[in-house]
Amino acid sequence: MLSERECIELIRRYARDTDSNCLVKGIGDDCAVLNKDENTCLLLTADTLVEGVHFDLHWHPPDLLGRKSAAVNLSDIAAMGGRPRFCLLSIGFPGSVPAWFEKFVAGFTGILQEHDTLLVGGDTVKGRHDLVISVTVIGEAARGRICYRTGAQPGDLVFVSGPLGKAAAGLALCRAGIDVDTIERGRELLAAHLDPEPLVKLGRTLAASGLVHAMMDISDGLATDMAHICAASGVGAEIHRDQLPVSTQLHAAAVRLRHSVLDWVLKGGEDYQLLFTVPPDRQKELTGLVLQQTGRAIFCIGRITAGSGVFLTDGLSRQDISYQGYDHFVS
Amino acid sequence: MLSERECIELIRRYARDTDSNCLVKGIGDDCAVLNKDENTCLLLTADTLVEGVHFDLHWHPPDLLGRKSAAVNLSDIAAMGGRPRFCLLSIGFPGSVPAWFEKFVAGFTGILQEHDTLLVGGDTVKGRHDLVISVTVIGEAARGRICYRTGAQPGDLVFVSGPLGKAAAGLALCRAGIDVDTIERGRELLAAHLDPEPLVKLGRTLAASGLVHAMMDISDGLATDMAHICAASGVGAEIHRDQLPVSTQLHAAAVRLRHSVLDWVLKGGEDYQLLFTVPPDRQKELTGLVLQQTGRAIFCIGRITAGSGVFLTDGLSRQDISYQGYDHFVS
Repeated sequence: MLSERECIELIRRYARDTDSNCLVKGIGDDCAVLNKDENTCLLLTADTLVEGVHFDLHWHPPDLLGRKSAAVNLSDIAAMGGRPRFCLLSIGFPGSVPAWFEKFVAGFTGILQEHDTLLVGGDTVKGRHDLVISVTVIGEAARGRICYRTGAQPGDLVFVSGPLGKAAAGLALCRAGIDVDTIERGRELLAAHLDPEPLVKLGRTLAASGLVHAMMDISDGLATDMAHICAASGVGAEIHRDQLPVSTQLHAAAVRLRHSVLDWVLKGGEDYQLLFTVPPDRQKELTGLVLQQTGRAIFCIGRITAGSGVFLTDGLSRQDISYQGYDHFVS
Repeated sequence: MLSERECIELIRRYARDTDSNCLVKGIGDDCAVLNKDENTCLLLTADTLVEGVHFDLHWHPPDLLGRKSAAVNLSDIAAMGGRPRFCLLSIGFPGSVPAWFEKFVAGFTGILQEHDTLLVGGDTVKGRHDLVISVTVIGEAARGRICYRTGAQPGDLVFVSGPLGKAAAGLALCRAGIDVDTIERGRELLAAHLDPEPLVKLGRTLAASGLVHAMMDISDGLATDMAHICAASGVGAEIHRDQLPVSTQLHAAAVRLRHSVLDWVLKGGEDYQLLFTVPPDRQKELTGLVLQQTGRAIFCIGRITAGSGVFLTDGLSRQDISYQGYDHFVS
């Protein structure tokens, strides 16, 4: 059985990024990057969501499912520092088009409009068993101000844009059928799972600063996505356990579900926080700039090292956590 | 139950093509059209294929399925007169990645290379029950030389690029389990279904000629796709029954399967021939130019009329065939 990484490697082998003066970056980052004109690049990303694998209509309201279907793609544009512009929606319905589809479309186009992105086309087809949603988003970014996974350098500090594991905890609460109102601020965990926020403004601010060496969004969990940056950049990383930002309500959910907080934080997918590396002497400058321009704090969680692998450390011991996050085929 | 057209209409209502100086054409043609630079437009198209609905692995060899998954999108670019450039592939596997997937990728990237198109990204995900293939193709076209569905004018002659119904007959032979070698040139019908040719060069020649008023590719059958051009252009059409090009082997298959040849020709989907309209005084010029540049004949099958609706005529009677082709939701 091929893992997701092996499957992408197979495709990449056949795709052979034959030299095209238009192609800047092919398979292997959050978006493909093409030259548009002298100053601008196009960013392309596509994601597919399958009912029963990526979402469950028993607890996912259709309008929020519409928002999330767009958000996961907007987040890929954010992760390169781009501005989303256009979107294609392909959807396969098992049987007839359900009555809730209008709510889905309202949510989908609603979040696109919040990000000045136009729905310009796509495809509606008959499916067989599963509802399947495929979305393509086209964005733009200033050439020379695009953040790739490949730029991390030994010595860089590793940052995340916010607390991790909330979406995984929210999903676990849904699956367990627990009334989120019985947990303090439980609705925030639910919202993290049902209606994630694509950090487009933050991504653009980080990229425009010129202070970020490497960036991606966390869709498959910190342990896996940090490993993606490390593999792409030819470096390793050390994550400090006590520096990981954890929201208070995560502890309440962990007690209720007898689940490990650290497991959610390291392995939980779909937080769509940004993960990025910064040279240590620019830390203060970037933190100040981000706070001023977006009102957001950012969190230093570790450091890029020479070598390879992602290690979690608590000062005493050191544990390899590379690729311990969500794998779309194995999970 | 919403038909495919009603479903697209719902999406279009919400998409609101708010004025963007970059968007030339949103939902409602074979591709969305965006301004790229002063001279060039981008074309965007996406199609989803679902196992058991759009293809059947019992008779579809994986390499040809790969070719077809790309071809149906390349055909949308051809239908606007564009040149395909880049491609995204999203694929959802029920369970593990099958051993034949490498053959699929070889076929998929093979046809892309024949058309100078690069696979630059996409997504591989776990599906639940159905294998689902979603493809996005990005193309380019010279601004002012793009053929839309909207340009047909009363008096125009209606042309198709080749015989119709072969793909539908090929599929019928597969479904009936008939050995195609027992039918004269039966393999051509099979190939029309399994490995359709996207008419990229022909589409570019037609668009570059400046002689074509409206164009699309025939994916849902002549009766439906002609109705799309008529609705988009605010005109009607009269199709002459005895002018429809029919390949000889279609008759043999029709006898064998006791099926109506005319039914396949009018309603059969997936031929991916081009359907286009031409002012009558330019017919000779275009026919000569196409023959010279592509070596292909083109076939006049009728005429655009004032009014609305698509009518089939044999000189004696006249029958409304609007939208009698393949509907992705109803069929």
